[in-house]
Amino acid sequence: MEKERLSYHQSVQKMVERIRADGMTNVWDRFAAQGLGNDPDKRCPFCMGGVRCDLCSNGPCRADAQKDKRGVCGIKADGMAMRMMLLRNILGTSTYHYHTEQTLRTLRATVQGQSPFSIREPEKLLNFAQRLGLDTSGSPEDVAARLCDFAQSDFQRLAHEPSLIVERLAPADRKECWRKLDIFPGGIYGEMLRATSSCLTNVDGYYVSLALKAMRMGIAMAYQSQIINEYCQDILFGIPRPHRMRVDLGVLDPAYVNVVPNGHEPFLGFAMVQLARDPQWQEKARAAGAKGLRVIASIETGQEMIQRWEMDDVFYGFTGNWIMQEAVLASGCVDLFACDMNCSMPVDPLYAEKYHFKLIPVSDLVAFEGVSERLDYVPEEAKDQAAQLLEMAIANFPQRRQKVEPVTGLRTGQAVVGFSTESILDALGGSLDPLLDAMKKGAIRGVAGFVSCTTLRDTGQDVHSVRMAKELIKRDILVLSMGCGNAALQVAGLCLPEAKDLAGPGLKAVCEALGVPPVLSYGTCTDTGRCADLVAAVSTALGGVAIPDLPVVVAAPEYMEQKATIDAIFALAFGLYTYVNPIPNVTGAPNLVKLLTEELSDVTGGLLNVNPHPEEAADALLDHIEKNRKKLGI
Amino acid sequence: MEKERLSYHQSVQKMVERIRADGMTNVWDRFAAQGLGNDPDKRCPFCMGGVRCDLCSNGPCRADAQKDKRGVCGIKADGMAMRMMLLRNILGTSTYHYHTEQTLRTLRATVQGQSPFSIREPEKLLNFAQRLGLDTSGSPEDVAARLCDFAQSDFQRLAHEPSLIVERLAPADRKECWRKLDIFPGGIYGEMLRATSSCLTNVDGYYVSLALKAMRMGIAMAYQSQIINEYCQDILFGIPRPHRMRVDLGVLDPAYVNVVPNGHEPFLGFAMVQLARDPQWQEKARAAGAKGLRVIASIETGQEMIQRWEMDDVFYGFTGNWIMQEAVLASGCVDLFACDMNCSMPVDPLYAEKYHFKLIPVSDLVAFEGVSERLDYVPEEAKDQAAQLLEMAIANFPQRRQKVEPVTGLRTGQAVVGFSTESILDALGGSLDPLLDAMKKGAIRGVAGFVSCTTLRDTGQDVHSVRMAKELIKRDILVLSMGCGNAALQVAGLCLPEAKDLAGPGLKAVCEALGVPPVLSYGTCTDTGRCADLVAAVSTALGGVAIPDLPVVVAAPEYMEQKATIDAIFALAFGLYTYVNPIPNVTGAPNLVKLLTEELSDVTGGLLNVNPHPEEAADALLDHIEKNRKKLGI
Repeated sequence: MEKERLSYHQSVQKMVERIRADGMTNVWDRFAAQGLGNDPDKRCPFCMGGVRCDLCSNGPCRADAQKDKRGVCGIKADGMAMRMMLLRNILGTSTYHYHTEQTLRTLRATVQGQSPFSIREPEKLLNFAQRLGLDTSGSPEDVAARLCDFAQSDFQRLAHEPSLIVERLAPADRKECWRKLDIFPGGIYGEMLRATSSCLTNVDGYYVSLALKAMRMGIAMAYQSQIINEYCQDILFGIPRPHRMRVDLGVLDPAYVNVVPNGHEPFLGFAMVQLARDPQWQEKARAAGAKGLRVIASIETGQEMIQRWEMDDVFYGFTGNWIMQEAVLASGCVDLFACDMNCSMPVDPLYAEKYHFKLIPVSDLVAFEGVSERLDYVPEEAKDQAAQLLEMAIANFPQRRQKVEPVTGLRTGQAVVGFSTESILDALGGSLDPLLDAMKKGAIRGVAGFVSCTTLRDTGQDVHSVRMAKELIKRDILVLSMGCGNAALQVAGLCLPEAKDLAGPGLKAVCEALGVPPVLSYGTCTDTGRCADLVAAVSTALGGVAIPDLPVVVAAPEYMEQKATIDAIFALAFGLYTYVNPIPNVTGAPNLVKLLTEELSDVTGGLLNVNPHPEEAADALLDHIEKNRKKLGI
Repeated sequence: MEKERLSYHQSVQKMVERIRADGMTNVWDRFAAQGLGNDPDKRCPFCMGGVRCDLCSNGPCRADAQKDKRGVCGIKADGMAMRMMLLRNILGTSTYHYHTEQTLRTLRATVQGQSPFSIREPEKLLNFAQRLGLDTSGSPEDVAARLCDFAQSDFQRLAHEPSLIVERLAPADRKECWRKLDIFPGGIYGEMLRATSSCLTNVDGYYVSLALKAMRMGIAMAYQSQIINEYCQDILFGIPRPHRMRVDLGVLDPAYVNVVPNGHEPFLGFAMVQLARDPQWQEKARAAGAKGLRVIASIETGQEMIQRWEMDDVFYGFTGNWIMQEAVLASGCVDLFACDMNCSMPVDPLYAEKYHFKLIPVSDLVAFEGVSERLDYVPEEAKDQAAQLLEMAIANFPQRRQKVEPVTGLRTGQAVVGFSTESILDALGGSLDPLLDAMKKGAIRGVAGFVSCTTLRDTGQDVHSVRMAKELIKRDILVLSMGCGNAALQVAGLCLPEAKDLAGPGLKAVCEALGVPPVLSYGTCTDTGRCADLVAAVSTALGGVAIPDLPVVVAAPEYMEQKATIDAIFALAFGLYTYVNPIPNVTGAPNLVKLLTEELSDVTGGLLNVNPHPEEAADALLDHIEKNRKKLGI
């Protein structure tokens, strides 16, 4: 397999050599092994087309739209493909919301003085509570408790009881559109119940209805799960503000005790950094023979952390996204891998055995075959849990050093991280005007929300993501990047001011004037909701331009899992032109494809675009932006 | 296709001829068309084995346990198969719970005097509220409102907050077992959130953990969704009590306006019967040229209705289970098909067009391609909605009569329906003792909870179900039948006292002494929870025998959809020996198969048994019963 098909990153390419030399199962070889014939991308055409179903005992069935061949129950290809897509959306929604509930649990414990955290952003808390229409009297703790009560009671509304959170946070033109389409949602639990129940055999086989249900749930998810979650995490851990961070596999130094919290929830990661910054813990690590104790940020838990907290010698750096996981673990530098909520691979126990690190699930969601030791996160016990994890890591260090030859000489790069609505406003001097002026004058043609994962389909890790980002900034499109795809660009060096040289002349000048990179690192995939909130603010600042008419697009060049698919569905409901790659498994469903890629613009104003070629895809995104600029007369 | 491969029922066999002569797509031909080669049961081996996955963009993947071939993420065959099974379980749980929420919504509206219903069973309400530990002061309406509040706040507990409903309703030995295994559940929404989030890519790839999560959710479902639902429906519509009901397709008389509520929720069906029993409505039907207006019970909505309400010339009879649906619709006798929640097939619009009836979704879950007219159930508007539906049906009658040649001469049979815990106690003279004595003496060897659907896999509609029931009663095993499989036995004549002649000598004598059939019709699949509650009562009456030691088994000879799979999972958690057919799509997962069919008896006490041969399967069920009898010394 050529190196580019492995990964964009040389550090990873190098690690694959070691992993293979060690005879370890790995994501690249597993991917290749799935190919039919000699083509790693070729798979069962019914599965690829989304036109198969094994939900009931009359199946498994295959549908064929050309021949009007239906499932045994009578469902058509379009219904089959959209129902499976809706199921994926439900998985993503649920996992986002699980995180949100954990955040509120943490905030409640904090309010009661029972967590190791505190309310770091009382002003944001107040502003957010005001925006939600809450009574803001009393202490920050009083307001936070009220916020938790309000949010959770909104979550619990049934589907026919309209969400107050959505009512109070979403832009007016969207609410009107959603009401017209009957996709203004109720509470997130009610919407998940409705969507999930609709996927049962013989309930809803109509692709349009299923697509509308997906969008409705997506709206609930963006406002109730994502925005509530990220804003409450800001309140607890700090609003993201720009700062530099070390990135890439070189941040792993075998001479240190390295603790890697991994997944999506930053709670125990932050708790560990707090402890590890105490000299006592550094001393313990040194007593075990290490140079010190470090918490290394990884994947999305890492992204949540690095966007909020500054680096130092303890909170040392960030590795990259999920496909890098086996490379991180095989480096011989890891002492403890603490797995919250998602993004920990089923093969991790094999790596733990081979490379002698402790593999500890810290969420009741996570489980591995052969791993019985666990420490499920409890906010009230977080300080003690963090201490236990650090103890385990330190105890692991001597044997890891003895038994594993570490890989050294891997690259360390840097990225500016920590852009958020607030910090963008700060960077612009307190108002969106400089950005809007640059857009109006045409120096910046538009903005792309870049929310992606990383996948091996079509290209190696991050290859297509990096290409797409380069094509976008070359066309003077400012990129706001989120998710695992954000890590792709951070590690590739696109989140540095120096990357302005890759941008078109207009965007380059703006970057120089403001001292910002052409790719603004905007957090995790959970920040999609925050980004929608920013887009709404831009719409307001432009005098109330409808969302679908803004020079704004979405790009997901390497979406991988089910959080990404519900993000895309929300983007479509939000009225945005949305590029995704790989091509989703709906190609066997012609009417569904037509709905998503042609007809939807007359429904929500959003539209799905697919194209594996980066230049063509970037051209299509620019075309949409230019069309909207013309509409706006700019 | 031989007639037996179509259906056990001659009425259906006859209707298939018409459907085919009319050139209509139908479930039998669609089933045959799915077969690979010439074998209607042969399908893709990866799909059949449960070892494929298309959740993420690195897939679709196939796993092979023999070669240790894993998905791209590293998940093994066992994890893949169990995760898909868990996903199916989530669909079933969700749909059950959706029904429960609608029932509570109806009860709340009734309490406020805003529905056409009333509290019919104040004594059951009081007893149930007492059992749940609620304050029972005040009016029945006060108590009912308190019950709704209590139940809904329990539903909303997160997974780490133990359910009070389960605590107060489940038997002691089960609670102890569940606590030991950490599968004592929280609220149903929290459990669904946990289970669904665990199915995301790279979260939980471990089949044992996934199986435990399924069981935990199943326990929440049985107590919070099923028992709360059925007991509240009893409170609203009456406790099931034995009475005769006409069954089979002959209940459809073309000369009447026939309204068929279909699905699972009986609310609008009951509301329509209440109206249709008013002579004014009969007069309206006669004015349109009909002999009168009838509400015909169908599938599980029908089952919910017939177990509670007596038949007359208005609430005339019951057709059968879901595979009969196309036969019902092609009879040329239907004027309105009102589709709630589930069990309405995607092809129904084609039938509506051909056979000129109104097809109206009455739940926001249900949608059909090409059908825009709908009337989603709102409890406060139920009377008016029922009236609108009846008007539509009457208006449809003249054109249906003009345009469609009805099929006549179809068989009408009878069944005794309406057994429930209370009515079994009544039949036994107020105590379980006569039943327990018969069990102790060995006249009845044991009891089988028969909870099934109907499927075309392996045999025609109901063929295997009827065979299995006959084999069980022949072995002196009393059958309590629920779900679509209950309809199989009702239509086949096994729910009549005369069927005693098919029973073994011991059971036959008991049937004669008590005047009951050898198959007790025990309601719908939602009555699984009620049945578990009865089994717990038997356990108590026997002096606290642990559930797994009772001479009780479960049989699901033709499970079809996802409600059935979560019922089976609950039965396993409840500690019961559980026979299912067709063989579930887990055969590619050897460790999972071993867990379910061998190891589980040491975990929960339950065990899965599969065997497509009815005599061998019945022998295995009897063996388990005899083993337990020996244990108990009876």
